[in-house]
Amino acid sequence: MTSIGIGVLGAGFIGQMHSLAFRNAGVSARMPRLRPRLKLICDRTGFQAQDIADRYGYEGSTLDWRDIVADPDIALFVNAGPNDLHGEPSIAAAQAGKHVFCEKPLASTADEAYATWKAVEATGVKHLCAFKYRSFPALNLARQMIRDGELGEIRHFRSRFLLTMLTPDGNLSWRFSRSKAGHGAVGDLGSHHVDLARFLVGEVTRVGAIIKSWSRDARGEITDVNDDAVVCAAELDNGATASFEASRVAGAHNLNGVVEVDGTRGSLSFHMERLNELVIYEPGRGPRVQMVTGAHHPYADFWLPVGIQGQHPLGWSDCFAHQARHMLAVVAGHEEVAPRATLRDGYRVAEIIDTIVRSGETGRFEPVIFRE
Amino acid sequence: MTSIGIGVLGAGFIGQMHSLAFRNAGVSARMPRLRPRLKLICDRTGFQAQDIADRYGYEGSTLDWRDIVADPDIALFVNAGPNDLHGEPSIAAAQAGKHVFCEKPLASTADEAYATWKAVEATGVKHLCAFKYRSFPALNLARQMIRDGELGEIRHFRSRFLLTMLTPDGNLSWRFSRSKAGHGAVGDLGSHHVDLARFLVGEVTRVGAIIKSWSRDARGEITDVNDDAVVCAAELDNGATASFEASRVAGAHNLNGVVEVDGTRGSLSFHMERLNELVIYEPGRGPRVQMVTGAHHPYADFWLPVGIQGQHPLGWSDCFAHQARHMLAVVAGHEEVAPRATLRDGYRVAEIIDTIVRSGETGRFEPVIFRE
Amino acid sequence: MTSIGIGVLGAGFIGQMHSLAFRNAGVSARMPRLRPRLKLICDRTGFQAQDIADRYGYEGSTLDWRDIVADPDIALFVNAGPNDLHGEPSIAAAQAGKHVFCEKPLASTADEAYATWKAVEATGVKHLCAFKYRSFPALNLARQMIRDGELGEIRHFRSRFLLTMLTPDGNLSWRFSRSKAGHGAVGDLGSHHVDLARFLVGEVTRVGAIIKSWSRDARGEITDVNDDAVVCAAELDNGATASFEASRVAGAHNLNGVVEVDGTRGSLSFHMERLNELVIYEPGRGPRVQMVTGAHHPYADFWLPVGIQGQHPLGWSDCFAHQARHMLAVVAGHEEVAPRATLRDGYRVAEIIDTIVRSGETGRFEPVIFRE
Amino acid sequence: MTSIGIGVLGAGFIGQMHSLAFRNAGVSARMPRLRPRLKLICDRTGFQAQDIADRYGYEGSTLDWRDIVADPDIALFVNAGPNDLHGEPSIAAAQAGKHVFCEKPLASTADEAYATWKAVEATGVKHLCAFKYRSFPALNLARQMIRDGELGEIRHFRSRFLLTMLTPDGNLSWRFSRSKAGHGAVGDLGSHHVDLARFLVGEVTRVGAIIKSWSRDARGEITDVNDDAVVCAAELDNGATASFEASRVAGAHNLNGVVEVDGTRGSLSFHMERLNELVIYEPGRGPRVQMVTGAHHPYADFWLPVGIQGQHPLGWSDCFAHQARHMLAVVAGHEEVAPRATLRDGYRVAEIIDTIVRSGETGRFEPVIFRE
Repeated sequence: MTSIGIGVLGAGFIGQMHSLAFRNAGVSARMPRLRPRLKLICDRTGFQAQDIADRYGYEGSTLDWRDIVADPDIALFVNAGPNDLHGEPSIAAAQAGKHVFCEKPLASTADEAYATWKAVEATGVKHLCAFKYRSFPALNLARQMIRDGELGEIRHFRSRFLLTMLTPDGNLSWRFSRSKAGHGAVGDLGSHHVDLARFLVGEVTRVGAIIKSWSRDARGEITDVNDDAVVCAAELDNGATASFEASRVAGAHNLNGVVEVDGTRGSLSFHMERLNELVIYEPGRGPRVQMVTGAHHPYADFWLPVGIQGQHPLGWSDCFAHQARHMLAVVAGHEEVAPRATLRDGYRVAEIIDTIVRSGETGRFEPVIFRE
Repeated sequence: MTSIGIGVLGAGFIGQMHSLAFRNAGVSARMPRLRPRLKLICDRTGFQAQDIADRYGYEGSTLDWRDIVADPDIALFVNAGPNDLHGEPSIAAAQAGKHVFCEKPLASTADEAYATWKAVEATGVKHLCAFKYRSFPALNLARQMIRDGELGEIRHFRSRFLLTMLTPDGNLSWRFSRSKAGHGAVGDLGSHHVDLARFLVGEVTRVGAIIKSWSRDARGEITDVNDDAVVCAAELDNGATASFEASRVAGAHNLNGVVEVDGTRGSLSFHMERLNELVIYEPGRGPRVQMVTGAHHPYADFWLPVGIQGQHPLGWSDCFAHQARHMLAVVAGHEEVAPRATLRDGYRVAEIIDTIVRSGETGRFEPVIFRE
Repeated sequence: MTSIGIGVLGAGFIGQMHSLAFRNAGVSARMPRLRPRLKLICDRTGFQAQDIADRYGYEGSTLDWRDIVADPDIALFVNAGPNDLHGEPSIAAAQAGKHVFCEKPLASTADEAYATWKAVEATGVKHLCAFKYRSFPALNLARQMIRDGELGEIRHFRSRFLLTMLTPDGNLSWRFSRSKAGHGAVGDLGSHHVDLARFLVGEVTRVGAIIKSWSRDARGEITDVNDDAVVCAAELDNGATASFEASRVAGAHNLNGVVEVDGTRGSLSFHMERLNELVIYEPGRGPRVQMVTGAHHPYADFWLPVGIQGQHPLGWSDCFAHQARHMLAVVAGHEEVAPRATLRDGYRVAEIIDTIVRSGETGRFEPVIFRE
Repeated sequence: MTSIGIGVLGAGFIGQMHSLAFRNAGVSARMPRLRPRLKLICDRTGFQAQDIADRYGYEGSTLDWRDIVADPDIALFVNAGPNDLHGEPSIAAAQAGKHVFCEKPLASTADEAYATWKAVEATGVKHLCAFKYRSFPALNLARQMIRDGELGEIRHFRSRFLLTMLTPDGNLSWRFSRSKAGHGAVGDLGSHHVDLARFLVGEVTRVGAIIKSWSRDARGEITDVNDDAVVCAAELDNGATASFEASRVAGAHNLNGVVEVDGTRGSLSFHMERLNELVIYEPGRGPRVQMVTGAHHPYADFWLPVGIQGQHPLGWSDCFAHQARHMLAVVAGHEEVAPRATLRDGYRVAEIIDTIVRSGETGRFEPVIFRE
């Protein structure tokens, strides 16, 4: 098996998820037979970087992402750093000829996202934006059913992403600060579902939103609190309605993420906490809980090891391994099973988010205008 | 037991539901001990009126609602007639000194609804508008929990009402005609949930909607098709966000009605098809399916017969009997267990619906302005 | 409409359920058009009898069941009295030419049950035993699917009936006394599911059981505590396995009643608390929640009022009305939609229960031997 | 980090699951910090062994398990071979000083299982039997709640394991042959749940079973078909009842595995297909779906990577990694979070299975007699 050198920026939770995913992505029986080699991990904290390097089996660690860019043995740059480090390192890596796999959101504003996309695209490397839900088997099955016309004409998309960032003492984290984190719920949570509307049904063309902010920092340190919640009515390019709701102040919800699609002949419902299941509604027959672990379903041949298909539930980290497999396939020039998100998608989602925020300010429905 | 004479306008499905409900409402052990006496039923079709009179045990039937108004033995007028007969007969009955129980929507427009409310109110009779979900035990428990502060500060209300009126041959019923039925999904379906937002959380103050119409009559007879679907982002008077979604073109849904509320310390979810259950979310503890049939829950003492409390599921018709019991209690001057909807509520919901429709036309968020 | 005089023994909870059911049974549009006339209700307590007579609209009340037997206007005797009054009054009523509708269990022992069945049968009247689950639409759909071969060969029947009769103070009710109540969980709870195995799949031929009793009366008054729980492995006449489990000491369960059937091509699951739903498993397709309220499903034409079919959940009391409708149809000589339980079934279930108890004593699997 | 050499017998599905699990077990932040080194994999097919060695990163492959026994760099022997290779290689590895991790069932008969346990135990190495459900967080939470008395006195254990091995053409695999596979459903499926009754509640002391076999080989090749299904009533050493049901002919079930426990103050329900959830029943409060991914739950500190706790669903392979972590901890002499199954448990389950089969033959309840 050919090996491919990997460098990762960020040794936090998401950086570790990608480390584990690429460790495991090589065991798949599916083509291409590429063995990821974990070369270098970078973090702002040296201790953390070294500890993660030890545990995940990296050949080295560093405090400076430029070391990844400079390493000739690294062919793939995985950017799992903080949002304000998504642009410059990704562009530098691309200009050094490395393929780029960047976490979402691509940037805090549509302008930055546009600039990053264009600069990376210009180098000719392969690039993906880590909208991870596109790697969930249930959502791939949903997309396939929709494209095959099993739901008839699609009339409605609906999503909610509810969780709590409230703390007992009322102290707010940096995520609540507009200057430090950019958007709040609308960006962090809403962006996943905005991308899914595009993945499943079609482009977002028009949005009208109410955006709310109730939180106050008990210590008084964070004074520029960003949005706590958004509820948005929208339209997609096929004429379907869409709704996006996101909240970080739903105190009882650890993670309540739901995506639903209704057509003239069928409906679908997906719940993040039951990621192995797709609820399918057919006329007159009541909801059916389809396990998506069967061998005949999308992504079965990504699964690892061979044979796990059929009956054994997948976890969140398995879906990261699917995503890593997909990046390897793109690098190797293979045909895509399903369209992944590129940095262009990263930009477009940022443009939609910016438009939602603007609608919340103007009190009007606003059209979404993309730059090419 | 004292008896109370009842006259019903409309012998269709809803008229029969009310007939059954009032037949059964007398068996309750709860005060007041009133025995409803089914005096007269009126329908446009004589055969239907006589058949229903026979089966449900009415003393007589008629083709003319004025016979009910003229009958001195009738103290309560139940208006289950078509929408365009909600106003005049209700006002005439009230002016003849009869209490009025009128189906929703109170009228096709806010203007008509306002006029009906004001005219009935002026007579001094008791009046209710049949927003039947207010009689569901699960939604009464929800309201009580919210008022007791068990969910903390309420941040979000969310609802959807999805069903299909699509037919295999593509022919449209009179319900699709603007001139015959007024609004489509927004009025017929949405009005229930608009009222529930008010019942559970607070008054609707601001709305922004997308309203769609795809249907075309295969026979070409109905040319003024009204709305097929609405998705609306809104604000309530406590600052909470709200969303209302209604569709009659969700081909796989027989009846998918969901109402959800999120607070800073808890969340609730109600599904119409599982009307005995309230799903309760508490921080860190996962969703809990509370059966609402327990004796200690709201409405237990309405149930019939005594003893059914505790473990036996209720059906849709039991909730109509609750509603009938409540009308009897209001007539007898008893304190209300929970605020029922009067014709004032009927008017306010009509005003909100009109504002939603206007927002769909202007592409702006619109404030709701009520007349007193 | 022809009226039929009804006399009811027992004004407690179950007596009231039947009173309500027969009140409502006349509204059905289905043949026969019989209007039940509530003539006489009997209870040991005069106040209770009179109160129930008032509320449910009986023409009179009595302390002596012989008054019902003697009343020439009564054509149907409904026996909702305590278990030790199931035999003598039912036989006397039958011998007076009245049709008999008797609650389950038919008797505390197989011998008594056999004698009652034979004596009533000899008179030539119509008779039913109130195994009420046979009137639930979901279980009728289940039976129809099984008979139509939709599940293939039936291999397994499985049931559990779990609830709590435990009290905070540890005092036991009369139901825990062998001399006063006969069997405990095995008779009271288990008999429903034993009958359902017969209704859905086939006769019980062989049983092996473990029967347990842990309860002790805190006051020391009840010294002959009967069984708290049973778990029984069994065989049905088509070779399928069966399991029956019943417990009254499952402290967290209000009412957890589950019936499941597995065949070579499909499986079914029914939960008492969700009586409008039948969960259907088909090969490779995951569980499907079929609402059984559709017009094309069994029992739809029993429902009342006409039109409720399609989408509106039924409650426990609606199923009693189905049962009452069925008794009226049997009286009128109409063909049965689905085989109801006669007193012969009442006897057979008693014989099976006795055999289960004997197996618990001998520690052997025992064959079930029926008398004809 | 210290490394530990690992040799695996068996490169099929389960062998790959263990390969992946040990690859990943090193990334955990939890003590001991041991880095598993995949030294050698053995399979009967050379191509399969070499392919798996390549993909999973083994240093070599072999056709002869004695090479693993002979390798001085291997400290841990993982036996994922076919059942008839569980005994001899495990004993040989132990006698060569290697720790032993052996798949279940430990042997086809209690006699063989006893001999294997005793021989391995005599060498003083550490040993575990891979009853993998003991590594599921939900079942560890269940055990902890039961031991903490949260359910009160335990009265009932209940389990079922339903799936289909039926094929469209009616041809039977080697698993249906008594001579090739030993027991059928009772051993393969039932053994998991027999072990869980012991893990959660207590030792099995008495069993009574019905065992059925319907299958016939369409080709006529397999003539000694073993059991298709078992339904067993049992007693545990605390007096609780238990039921075990297993079937391989439930044609619509891919994998329906359910374990339930009822106590006097609470009940629990676990479904294999929703392995992140434990359904908890508390008196009067309805079922609650507890996600077990929270940091405060058992096994949280096994999870990988650090931070995944809290909200992200685990999959089946994550639970294998937990199990591998546990074996590493045992090797390092660390205290156990929860008692794992040793080969003694492997023997005891085999003894219980043998007694169940004997009960099916004698038609009597049989006591379970263990050898020490």
